[in-house]
Amino acid sequence: MIVWLNGVLLKSAEVRIDPLDRGFTLGDGLFETVAARGGKVLRIPAHLARLRQGCEILGLPYPAIDLEVALGETFAANKLTDAVLRLTLTRGPAPRGLWPSGKSEPTLLITAEAMPAAPAPARCVIATVTCRNEHSPLARVKSLNYLDNILARKEAVARDADEAIVLNTVGVVAEAAAANIFIVKNGKAFTPPVSDGALPGVMRAAILEANFAQEKSLKPEDLSTANGVFLTNSLGVRPVEIIDGRQVNAIDGFIADLKAKL
Amino acid sequence: MIVWLNGVLLKSAEVRIDPLDRGFTLGDGLFETVAARGGKVLRIPAHLARLRQGCEILGLPYPAIDLEVALGETFAANKLTDAVLRLTLTRGPAPRGLWPSGKSEPTLLITAEAMPAAPAPARCVIATVTCRNEHSPLARVKSLNYLDNILARKEAVARDADEAIVLNTVGVVAEAAAANIFIVKNGKAFTPPVSDGALPGVMRAAILEANFAQEKSLKPEDLSTANGVFLTNSLGVRPVEIIDGRQVNAIDGFIADLKAKL
Repeated sequence: MIVWLNGVLLKSAEVRIDPLDRGFTLGDGLFETVAARGGKVLRIPAHLARLRQGCEILGLPYPAIDLEVALGETFAANKLTDAVLRLTLTRGPAPRGLWPSGKSEPTLLITAEAMPAAPAPARCVIATVTCRNEHSPLARVKSLNYLDNILARKEAVARDADEAIVLNTVGVVAEAAAANIFIVKNGKAFTPPVSDGALPGVMRAAILEANFAQEKSLKPEDLSTANGVFLTNSLGVRPVEIIDGRQVNAIDGFIADLKAKL
Repeated sequence: MIVWLNGVLLKSAEVRIDPLDRGFTLGDGLFETVAARGGKVLRIPAHLARLRQGCEILGLPYPAIDLEVALGETFAANKLTDAVLRLTLTRGPAPRGLWPSGKSEPTLLITAEAMPAAPAPARCVIATVTCRNEHSPLARVKSLNYLDNILARKEAVARDADEAIVLNTVGVVAEAAAANIFIVKNGKAFTPPVSDGALPGVMRAAILEANFAQEKSLKPEDLSTANGVFLTNSLGVRPVEIIDGRQVNAIDGFIADLKAKL
């Protein structure tokens, strides 16, 4: 893999992250997962807008370079047609301490992997081991603090599923561990508002902007009574087949219509 | 600085963290901050017990080596009398995905810095920007997901203070951004229970075990009506001087008694 690190393209094996990098020591940073298909990097403005918002919340300087060019260079260097790019921005190396006393030099890393095949319909559980803190600004940020989502996914795997639906601190549906969640009811699609703990996903925003869904608080019961359920992230749209062992209606026609409009 | 990485002592500048290390990409790991004073590494069993509990919660294998020896070697190599050691354990490098499909090789890093001077009494604010999710198992774990605490500390600095008191999702006192919190009332000390979101701190446990304090849920009002407030972490005990601009009683005698017993 060819990796872009602070302005330089390098072989992955040559890239060194400093052991004092605050991304490594404290999860002090942000990332974006960006799809590239057919030779084109997708939805760059939406990803960069979210990154900028995350920088404001974390008090990180937004990179002063052209990130679109950097994404494009990384993509081109890896000679892939369809890829998953990942942009990681951290506060950079610093001595001990929660808030750096001096000025730190941010770390900006872009990696590229081949786009995986579209996953099979999701077999989900509703996570019981942890919940999403909708009161934290981090719920609105794609930060490097992914352990709650990892714990939820771990539970899903332990329960013979492959994705977890995560509730917030009051038991309302927030998102899935690595995706936003939508239900379909009477031909209309609904997805939890960001205030319930949903990450403001780029694909989610595209669906809302296309008027293909509305925001609405969802209880776990709404998942049972829905006509269908699907997940989205920047890599695509994925139907849900099973929730907590119960079969969910297939909505192939709805999803085909949706994909055609995105 | 001489650093211990996966069994080898290296100069810090020679240490390379893999850009795909899950500690860096997802905050998927744990750490311990361990004090060494007078040539001796302190409270090792308590730190390693907490690390082991964290490993169980995260599904990380507990290292199969003698960590006490590794801490001692790192401390000795840096030729310090008083030091802050930090042990960081991550799930190691892995390709994309929330839960690694294959077996990953954990990263174990130990660093050492000179022990800083004891800080002045703390000028605190009660954080308003974020709160601690007492419902997540991560509240009981010293994980690499430190952004909520960083945001709280950032708020403190912005409000001309140097530490933040963090409430949980229902407005009950949990801890400080980088310490546990205790109040003194009528000669007795109280600290929030772990179920309220307090990190099970090693110094906190030592104080409870010495019967020098009891667990009790604390409301923000209890901070105002207390006879004194202090913070603890593995580096020591620190009195609180100011909370939200209001002066807090000095309790020098109480703290001197406490320090004498630890």
